[in-house]
Amino acid sequence: MVFKINILGCGSATPTLRRNPTAQVINVLECHFLIDCAEGTQLQMRKYGIKFQKINHIFISHLHGDHYLGLIGFISTLHLLGRTRELNIYAPKDLEEIIFSQLRASQSFLSFHINFHPLVSKESELIYEDDLVTIHTIPLKHRIYCNGFLIKEKKHPYRIDINAVTANKIPIAWYHKLKKGENYNENEQFIPVEELTLAPYPSRSYAYCSDTAYFESIIPIIENVDLLYHEATFLNDQKKRAKQTFHSTIEDACNIAKKANVKKLIVGHFSARYKTTEQFLEEAYPIFINTETVKDGDEFNIPF
Amino acid sequence: MVFKINILGCGSATPTLRRNPTAQVINVLECHFLIDCAEGTQLQMRKYGIKFQKINHIFISHLHGDHYLGLIGFISTLHLLGRTRELNIYAPKDLEEIIFSQLRASQSFLSFHINFHPLVSKESELIYEDDLVTIHTIPLKHRIYCNGFLIKEKKHPYRIDINAVTANKIPIAWYHKLKKGENYNENEQFIPVEELTLAPYPSRSYAYCSDTAYFESIIPIIENVDLLYHEATFLNDQKKRAKQTFHSTIEDACNIAKKANVKKLIVGHFSARYKTTEQFLEEAYPIFINTETVKDGDEFNIPF
Repeated sequence: MVFKINILGCGSATPTLRRNPTAQVINVLECHFLIDCAEGTQLQMRKYGIKFQKINHIFISHLHGDHYLGLIGFISTLHLLGRTRELNIYAPKDLEEIIFSQLRASQSFLSFHINFHPLVSKESELIYEDDLVTIHTIPLKHRIYCNGFLIKEKKHPYRIDINAVTANKIPIAWYHKLKKGENYNENEQFIPVEELTLAPYPSRSYAYCSDTAYFESIIPIIENVDLLYHEATFLNDQKKRAKQTFHSTIEDACNIAKKANVKKLIVGHFSARYKTTEQFLEEAYPIFINTETVKDGDEFNIPF
Repeated sequence: MVFKINILGCGSATPTLRRNPTAQVINVLECHFLIDCAEGTQLQMRKYGIKFQKINHIFISHLHGDHYLGLIGFISTLHLLGRTRELNIYAPKDLEEIIFSQLRASQSFLSFHINFHPLVSKESELIYEDDLVTIHTIPLKHRIYCNGFLIKEKKHPYRIDINAVTANKIPIAWYHKLKKGENYNENEQFIPVEELTLAPYPSRSYAYCSDTAYFESIIPIIENVDLLYHEATFLNDQKKRAKQTFHSTIEDACNIAKKANVKKLIVGHFSARYKTTEQFLEEAYPIFINTETVKDGDEFNIPF
C-alpha cells in the first residue's frame, strides 16, 4: 500500500552539480506519476532506479525550462526503448506545439500515442481519476501560468474482520459488499458493517506546490494533506527578491503549511546560491516544526 | 597557441550514466566553439570546468534530440547569469523556431541577442571566419539533414629570426611585413623573407563528423586533417543496423580516416549497448592504427 515520493531534482533554474532542477515521481499504489521533468530527469531516473516504462502520466506545472526541458528527451527515449503504451501529458497548452514541433524537426514518428491534456483553467479542477486516486490542479501564483498538483487516495475499502465474519457465518460472496461499506442484510439477519469489518485505512494525500509566491488561495485546496511539498527558493533575508520573482521564502512555505494544517512539510527548489540547507531548517522550525529540506534522491513515504 | 578538443559527451541517443550524449568544446587560440549541445551539456561544462560565457559560437549538426536538447537550457542559463554579449548559433533552420517558441512560452526576454545562422546548403560552405580560423560545414549522410564541421587555422605568420634581423639591421617597423611573408626591399637592399624568418607554424585542423553513415563524399573536405572525430556507433557485427540507421561502424570510421589520410582518428557516439570500448580499438587497429576511443571528459590537444 505504497504512497511514495521520489525527489529527482530540487534545485531551481540555474543548474548546479549539487542539485538537478525539478522532477519528482509519485508512486501511489504502484501507479507512477511524474511531476515536472527538468533537463537531466532521465539520468536521475536511471540513477535512482525508477523504471521509465512505468510512467504513464506526466504532469507539468509550468513552462519555465527548469520544469520541463527534459520532457522531449524522455519521450524520445521511451520511443527508442520501444514503448507502445500511450502516454498522458497534463500541461499548459503551449507545450503541445513545443513537443510536436521538435518531433517534426527530427522526423520522429513515435511508437506510441501521446494524449495531451491542455491545462488552461485558473480554478482548481479534477484532471485525473482512476479507481484509487484523484489528481486536482492547485492554481499557483507565479510569473507565468502555473499549477501545483494534489494527489489523493480515494476512500479505501472496509477491511474484513475475519473473526467477526467467521463467527457470524457471513457467506464469502458478501465480502465485496462489506468492503464497499454495505450493512449485512440477508435471510432476515441484519448486521451493521462496522461489526464485521475494521475501519478503512485513511485516505492519504500529497500536495505539490512549485513554483509560487506566497499565495493563501491554495490553503482550502491543500488543507490537512499528509505531505506538502512547497517551494522555498529563498531564505527570509531575500523576501524582496522572492516577491520580485514570484517565488517563496522558507517563512512563506511554513506559514502556508501551518495555516493549511498539513501534517508534514518538505521544501525544495533552492536557489543555486545556497550550498547547504541547514539555515532553511533554522528559519522553519519556529514556524512549523515538522519541516524537512529535500535533496536529490530523497524518498518520502506517507504511512497510514 | 592552443588547439584543444574537450569531449563533453560521447554517447548516442539513449542516455546512460556512463556517457552523456554529444557535445564538444573546441578551443582554438582561446576562441571557444561549442559543437552540438545535448541534454545535460551545461552540467558537463560545469563538471569539466568550461566557462559558460566564453562560448560565443554554437554549431549544431542536426536536429536529433541527442545533439541539441541541452541548447535551450544553456541559453536560459546564460541569460540568468546576466550575459550581454551576443550569441551566434549555426544550425539547421528549424531550430530557430524551436528556440524562440520556447522563449515565448516562458515569457523570457533574453538579456543578449541571438544571431541565428540557418544552415540549408547540401554543399560544404564557409560559415565562420575570423583573423585566425575558418569553419566549413561537412555535409553528412544521415536520416535527416546533418552537417559536420571543419575547423582550420589560417596560415600562421612567419616567425621573426631575431639573429637574422639583427645581423641585417632590419628596422623594427618592417617586422609586421616580414610576418606576412613580404621580402625585405628597402634602400636598394633586397633580402628574401626566408632568410629573415623561420617558417610559419603549420596550420592545424579538426574535423567533426557525427552523425553519418559511411560517406566517401566527405573525404576531399577532410583530407589530411590533424584530427578527425568520426562517429562509430556500432562494432562491425552491426553493419546492417548501422546502414538502417544511417550510422557508421568502427570499420567505416577507420576506412574514412585512412582514405582521407588524416593524422589521427578519435571515435565516439557509441551505442548504449557497449559498456566498454576495447573492442572498438581491436577492430580499428588493423585498418587505422592511430585511433583512439573517446570518453566524457577527455581532452585532445593538437600540437604543431
